[in-house]
Amino acid sequence: MNDVGFDLTQHFVPGLPEPTPRFGGFPPYNFIGGHNDPVQIPSEALAEAAARVLRREGSKLAMYNLAQGPQGYAGLRDFVALKLSGHRGIACTRDDVLITSGSGQGIDLVARLLVQPGDTVVMEEFTYGGALTKFRKMGLNVAGAKLDEHGIRMDALEAQLAALQAQGKTPKFIYTIPTIQNPTGSVLPLERRHQLIALSKRFGVPIFEDECYADLTWATEAPPALYALDPSCVIHIGSFSKSLAPALRVGYAVAGWPVLSRMLSCKSDGGTGALDQMVIAEYFSAHFDDHITHLNGVLAGKLAAMQEAVAAEFGTAAEPWTPRGGIFLWFRLPDSVDVRKLVKPAADAGIAFNPGPEWAVDGEAAKSHLRLCFAMPSVEVIREGVAAFAKVCREQTGIPAISRNVQH
Amino acid sequence: MNDVGFDLTQHFVPGLPEPTPRFGGFPPYNFIGGHNDPVQIPSEALAEAAARVLRREGSKLAMYNLAQGPQGYAGLRDFVALKLSGHRGIACTRDDVLITSGSGQGIDLVARLLVQPGDTVVMEEFTYGGALTKFRKMGLNVAGAKLDEHGIRMDALEAQLAALQAQGKTPKFIYTIPTIQNPTGSVLPLERRHQLIALSKRFGVPIFEDECYADLTWATEAPPALYALDPSCVIHIGSFSKSLAPALRVGYAVAGWPVLSRMLSCKSDGGTGALDQMVIAEYFSAHFDDHITHLNGVLAGKLAAMQEAVAAEFGTAAEPWTPRGGIFLWFRLPDSVDVRKLVKPAADAGIAFNPGPEWAVDGEAAKSHLRLCFAMPSVEVIREGVAAFAKVCREQTGIPAISRNVQH
Repeated sequence: MNDVGFDLTQHFVPGLPEPTPRFGGFPPYNFIGGHNDPVQIPSEALAEAAARVLRREGSKLAMYNLAQGPQGYAGLRDFVALKLSGHRGIACTRDDVLITSGSGQGIDLVARLLVQPGDTVVMEEFTYGGALTKFRKMGLNVAGAKLDEHGIRMDALEAQLAALQAQGKTPKFIYTIPTIQNPTGSVLPLERRHQLIALSKRFGVPIFEDECYADLTWATEAPPALYALDPSCVIHIGSFSKSLAPALRVGYAVAGWPVLSRMLSCKSDGGTGALDQMVIAEYFSAHFDDHITHLNGVLAGKLAAMQEAVAAEFGTAAEPWTPRGGIFLWFRLPDSVDVRKLVKPAADAGIAFNPGPEWAVDGEAAKSHLRLCFAMPSVEVIREGVAAFAKVCREQTGIPAISRNVQH
Repeated sequence: MNDVGFDLTQHFVPGLPEPTPRFGGFPPYNFIGGHNDPVQIPSEALAEAAARVLRREGSKLAMYNLAQGPQGYAGLRDFVALKLSGHRGIACTRDDVLITSGSGQGIDLVARLLVQPGDTVVMEEFTYGGALTKFRKMGLNVAGAKLDEHGIRMDALEAQLAALQAQGKTPKFIYTIPTIQNPTGSVLPLERRHQLIALSKRFGVPIFEDECYADLTWATEAPPALYALDPSCVIHIGSFSKSLAPALRVGYAVAGWPVLSRMLSCKSDGGTGALDQMVIAEYFSAHFDDHITHLNGVLAGKLAAMQEAVAAEFGTAAEPWTPRGGIFLWFRLPDSVDVRKLVKPAADAGIAFNPGPEWAVDGEAAKSHLRLCFAMPSVEVIREGVAAFAKVCREQTGIPAISRNVQH
């Protein structure tokens, strides 16, 4: 009997991701993650909504999927259909909606249907780091589509698709965030939406539309979703993480039944958490417009504070994009600054930010870019944190040349 | 421009699972699925718990993982540690607990750490169909361990591990449900638990302990969990689906940090639904013992009704196992009955049951076995449904020879 201790780690398969460190709490100046503003969580109204829906429908919890099938809670699917028809121009019913365990699961499921290792997909040159990481882990080749302040440049995309075609390559999808692009905050104009759909059809490339942030559009009128313009070539996903709360793990996908029925077959989680779904439906069915209007006002104020702080602290050294809504500001520092080298000293100063390379298809080319999220911190913390970050940046790189603290 | 229609299904990768049909509701006699008794859902107490926890901690919803890190809601991890130390002999704290999105995710994560396609694993000869299906989809070879009324037969397991060793094969884990085995309902005695751990160490095979049903043990005293006896070679998972409600997607894993920290790195869902976690913690922290005692009393009554109905309708044609708790009855019909051929006619008569082959490592050998779940239906429906099932079985196979309706 060689019964001398047992080390489970010796039984791990090779190639596992590195261990996750113990959670040590958020840093004081936390400008990463899609967190929302804790002050704006309607705790009292959510408490009332939760109590109401549990008294009315609590007994359904005894059944998987509330005995309503794997597409999700009917009340929430009804609300999604109503919201999408009222706000995004999408004509759909509960039958066309699949509730997902966060929009990340929506990304996983769409990718499951459309891609295999070695395939090529198109993403915006600056894009959601979570999706980029997922796609690269799946072994995909990612081609970056050029952006300007209005989203994908259709002339460039057309040339890119033609060049890929000439190489015998058809991308498996174009992943786009047309409405409050992550991280630039742009909104794709209607004309470009039509052009994108035409390109999709001409080159035979499905569109994967992620409207995670579309409810947080305030500085412009958002055109209809791509799915609203042509559902034949588009799969649409969205989320309640940004419009209500990210700890609630609820997103949705909208597509024709031939697509949804396959996504369902790949959704192996036994259903999305019922209470999260029920409470969102109960609260938003009564309060969505009020909630969003108020939240967008608060977020616009925080964005203004962030823009002012960046301008004041970095001056002309920072070239920010102009977001039309959302929760983040994307900007560029001079080429001499490699933001990757700022991560550690910033963390030591209690600051977390998203380095551009993690949010860009060509990481090296984005080495001077960064993303700062402004929804969670107070205006006060935003001002202090940006100042502290400018100080770290100046100490490490000499940029910005003179800090605000010195100037005043 | 070949802009003539677009069919997304033409873009699917090969080998996708078949589409899921539209949900058509439960059949009248629904004896499948781990559903609970809707009458026992404490809707009023859950409403109060939800309102209380939202008023107290609702603002935390603004942050991913409630700003408490990816292991899950601290209040729930505290409760899991308390429950496991009080009921399962496991000494642990919140630091040792990972909240999962259902115990199915626990199974996925443990498998991710320990197995690759082509590997061999050991499962009980009759076992949880969901895990069996997952493991087979992963390309694993499954070896079945012989069971008797007290769970795995250790003499047979020892011989089996020795035989595998002689072939140069070391199974990557032994997946076991020692406490209310699924589907037989057995409880592994303490002596066998010690023997199992000794075999694990002797042959160098980790134990994957699934205690999904352990809270529903009522007809015997359950010995401590395997993890309690030796945490070095065991990864432990559990669930709230059976003790409270399966629509709440919350399970947990308990293991040393070297294991949990790797599971965390593979858990890519952005956290488990917060409200599901918060409400379970709030309700069970005050009411667990009362709830479980009451629920077990109700389930014991339903099991008795099911056992009586099976005896009355099938007579000596049915050889049932004797569950020590849980929500299902496993029994065997004469060898001449192939239950797979009963699925369709039973469905036509409004009856759903689990055919043995889906719950058995050797499907062919289990062709006369079946599982009936009794938690959701009322005693009335149990009686009617078992009678209706016996009628279908008699019409199709001549067994049982004379139905109760004819006898009386």
